Amino acid sequence: MSNQILLGKRVLVTHADAFMGPILCEVFVNHGATVIPSSDPLVSADAPDAIVAAVGRVDILVANLAIPAPTTAATEVSDQEWNDTFSALVHPLQRLFRAVLPPMIGRRSGKILVMGSASALRGMKHTSTYSAARGAQLAYVQAVGVEVAPHNVHVNAIAQNFVDNPTYFPLDVQSNPRFQERLKREVPLGRLVAAREDAEFAAYLCSESANCFVGQVFPVCGGWVVR
Amino acid sequence: MSNQILLGKRVLVTHADAFMGPILCEVFVNHGATVIPSSDPLVSADAPDAIVAAVGRVDILVANLAIPAPTTAATEVSDQEWNDTFSALVHPLQRLFRAVLPPMIGRRSGKILVMGSASALRGMKHTSTYSAARGAQLAYVQAVGVEVAPHNVHVNAIAQNFVDNPTYFPLDVQSNPRFQERLKREVPLGRLVAAREDAEFAAYLCSESANCFVGQVFPVCGGWVVR
Amino acid sequence: MSNQILLGKRVLVTHADAFMGPILCEVFVNHGATVIPSSDPLVSADAPDAIVAAVGRVDILVANLAIPAPTTAATEVSDQEWNDTFSALVHPLQRLFRAVLPPMIGRRSGKILVMGSASALRGMKHTSTYSAARGAQLAYVQAVGVEVAPHNVHVNAIAQNFVDNPTYFPLDVQSNPRFQERLKREVPLGRLVAAREDAEFAAYLCSESANCFVGQVFPVCGGWVVR
Amino acid sequence: MSNQILLGKRVLVTHADAFMGPILCEVFVNHGATVIPSSDPLVSADAPDAIVAAVGRVDILVANLAIPAPTTAATEVSDQEWNDTFSALVHPLQRLFRAVLPPMIGRRSGKILVMGSASALRGMKHTSTYSAARGAQLAYVQAVGVEVAPHNVHVNAIAQNFVDNPTYFPLDVQSNPRFQERLKREVPLGRLVAAREDAEFAAYLCSESANCFVGQVFPVCGGWVVR
Repeated sequence: MSNQILLGKRVLVTHADAFMGPILCEVFVNHGATVIPSSDPLVSADAPDAIVAAVGRVDILVANLAIPAPTTAATEVSDQEWNDTFSALVHPLQRLFRAVLPPMIGRRSGKILVMGSASALRGMKHTSTYSAARGAQLAYVQAVGVEVAPHNVHVNAIAQNFVDNPTYFPLDVQSNPRFQERLKREVPLGRLVAAREDAEFAAYLCSESANCFVGQVFPVCGGWVVR
Repeated sequence: MSNQILLGKRVLVTHADAFMGPILCEVFVNHGATVIPSSDPLVSADAPDAIVAAVGRVDILVANLAIPAPTTAATEVSDQEWNDTFSALVHPLQRLFRAVLPPMIGRRSGKILVMGSASALRGMKHTSTYSAARGAQLAYVQAVGVEVAPHNVHVNAIAQNFVDNPTYFPLDVQSNPRFQERLKREVPLGRLVAAREDAEFAAYLCSESANCFVGQVFPVCGGWVVR
Repeated sequence: MSNQILLGKRVLVTHADAFMGPILCEVFVNHGATVIPSSDPLVSADAPDAIVAAVGRVDILVANLAIPAPTTAATEVSDQEWNDTFSALVHPLQRLFRAVLPPMIGRRSGKILVMGSASALRGMKHTSTYSAARGAQLAYVQAVGVEVAPHNVHVNAIAQNFVDNPTYFPLDVQSNPRFQERLKREVPLGRLVAAREDAEFAAYLCSESANCFVGQVFPVCGGWVVR
Repeated sequence: MSNQILLGKRVLVTHADAFMGPILCEVFVNHGATVIPSSDPLVSADAPDAIVAAVGRVDILVANLAIPAPTTAATEVSDQEWNDTFSALVHPLQRLFRAVLPPMIGRRSGKILVMGSASALRGMKHTSTYSAARGAQLAYVQAVGVEVAPHNVHVNAIAQNFVDNPTYFPLDVQSNPRFQERLKREVPLGRLVAAREDAEFAAYLCSESANCFVGQVFPVCGGWVVR
């Protein structure tokens, strides 16, 4: 049994069936949390409010939002791709924050962790749409994190890349020898970060031990970006 | 007469009547550029394409996009505010890039400079919407900058704050003694960056001397962020 | 009893009587570690080797090095101040690494955590000597972290500021109302980071859960720097 | 003839025969400066003071300090290598600043530009000594930059890598096909930054147009680090 650093905490995990969702739910439960997983796509403008209303008290929101990352050349990106990506990753984030923050501020207690992307910290080819959306997330976290800190609400983000997960690194990609060579060459860690390593770090950041972090972005990408 | 580092260059400046637009036009002309100012709001999906088509060859795009920055508490941000801000600052950026990049790539020559914001690099209270939109811009620049660099097209951004301009620091704000105190306390430079200093730096980054910069973000904010 | 994430680990903590030393020892013991505290000043060139030789196996080195931070104006810094600071903070670090790394590499197992300073990430007045020395530490960690990662040795740093500790924030400073005002104004967290919060994070970074971090710098400074 | 943005400025360039020294002298003269090149190694404690005293008024100090970068494994670095590197790159920097700053502060006018290294911003293998020394430089610049800004003295640094220069990228390295492949793979720009591009940027940063920059670090490394 893992240590119970999240005992008694009600945790809403969004897109619970994608990206880091499944392992986050498992690890957070192991640490004593009551996890409320949501698999709603959250694209509809009403969805975030409705889900939060249905859940009741949310001590911790883990904003895990994913979409298969487009790999379109910048010159070929359609309005549709752009809008779909922002509708999946960006607009719901603001609506989720707006729904969970007032009661957290009222209780002077609460945490939000955004599972973001290091693609917003360092450019990569053929990821312009995705990087832009992830960049909006991180800058939003920094701003809101500073704003709600005086209310004892802690908002932070993980900026990940090269973390094992079925949404962005499916097994057929991982089994490609060229991908493994690229990992050795480009990622100081020399391997994918394990899903569990990422989720354990997320659990730590959501625990009371981590009350000192506000508006901060933590890279989890095997050293691909340093800070 | 200033040195003619932009001689013969056709420069499209967007939102030419707002933010850094007027001084950018003046300084770029002083440096020999042929400046095509556009005051179109660019919110309509067709506008960026139409403007670029009307302009003819664009050697340099200065993507100067502005909107009066909302100062709403994060808990009070409306979908309307959010959408309006992204519609003014983010979506047109992608459409402008998509319109100007193919001919630049075809000619193996061209530059884009985005007049972005340091609010995406460091959190501030009551700027969550604006910071998010500006964060999308910077991450987008980083990604596209890396992608088009092999085509000899140079895409970079300035991340500014505390720069004298009528959109964000109107005279009545500047004349407030509390604002001047805040400048002394929070901004190492101790004063607003002059509009001309910012525009001269933009001109430098758009000159052939600056062909070595790709996908890079340059803070211009009096030391408020270091890099 | 805390969870035993460091059970069976032999941990060398340097300058164990200063800076974060006492709380690090306490927290690491709580997590099951066998802590070997050293209070040697480590200024002598032979000291690091001698201490490491005397300790036997070191699974984890916590390089906690401190010196009362000089507050001299940059124009008044003496060679003596400069040399003393580098002799306390910088040169021993390299000698400690050189002593502990070969057996770690040989065992393909080991961790080093440097208790560094965010003063190396953001400039402050009258701290030039100290910032320079702390800057050497962080850049050194980034380089060595990348170099030894393929050997399954994990080297990282905390870059702290505004953390409660008797070396840099003694009680008489903390009880000064002007200092408390400064905290509210400059540090988004609005208070000092508790010593225990910092030490718990250090323990986490030294646990096997954190095997994914290499050459990374983690700010712990209440949001004073974001990343 | 280049534009005379440095007309009437007396510029001290150190290590004028190494690293970026020769091109800096040429470019600064082209821009109207009176360049005083110094080839003193500056290792002796008295040398910086003596040189500054001999020069007379220094409007701009270009602290160009170089040493052939050691490529020793971290476990093999000798005290001698460490001390030699800090004696060449770090200690003279503080002594140079101490010598030139008081008259600059007295005149409320002056600039210092440090030709630093991006190896302090992103880890590389087998460069631990060099990175540490370069990290000290950048953190020092950030601190002093903030401290002397109120005196209208502007202190900044370039953090370069992959810039063409005989000290770090001699022709035999450049002509190695594997090095050229590495450039394409690791450096978004796909080529070395030209020495002249770097020196022109340095000249810009030393001109009156750049009075808005204080304590700032500018990467010049073909996109190898973004900011």
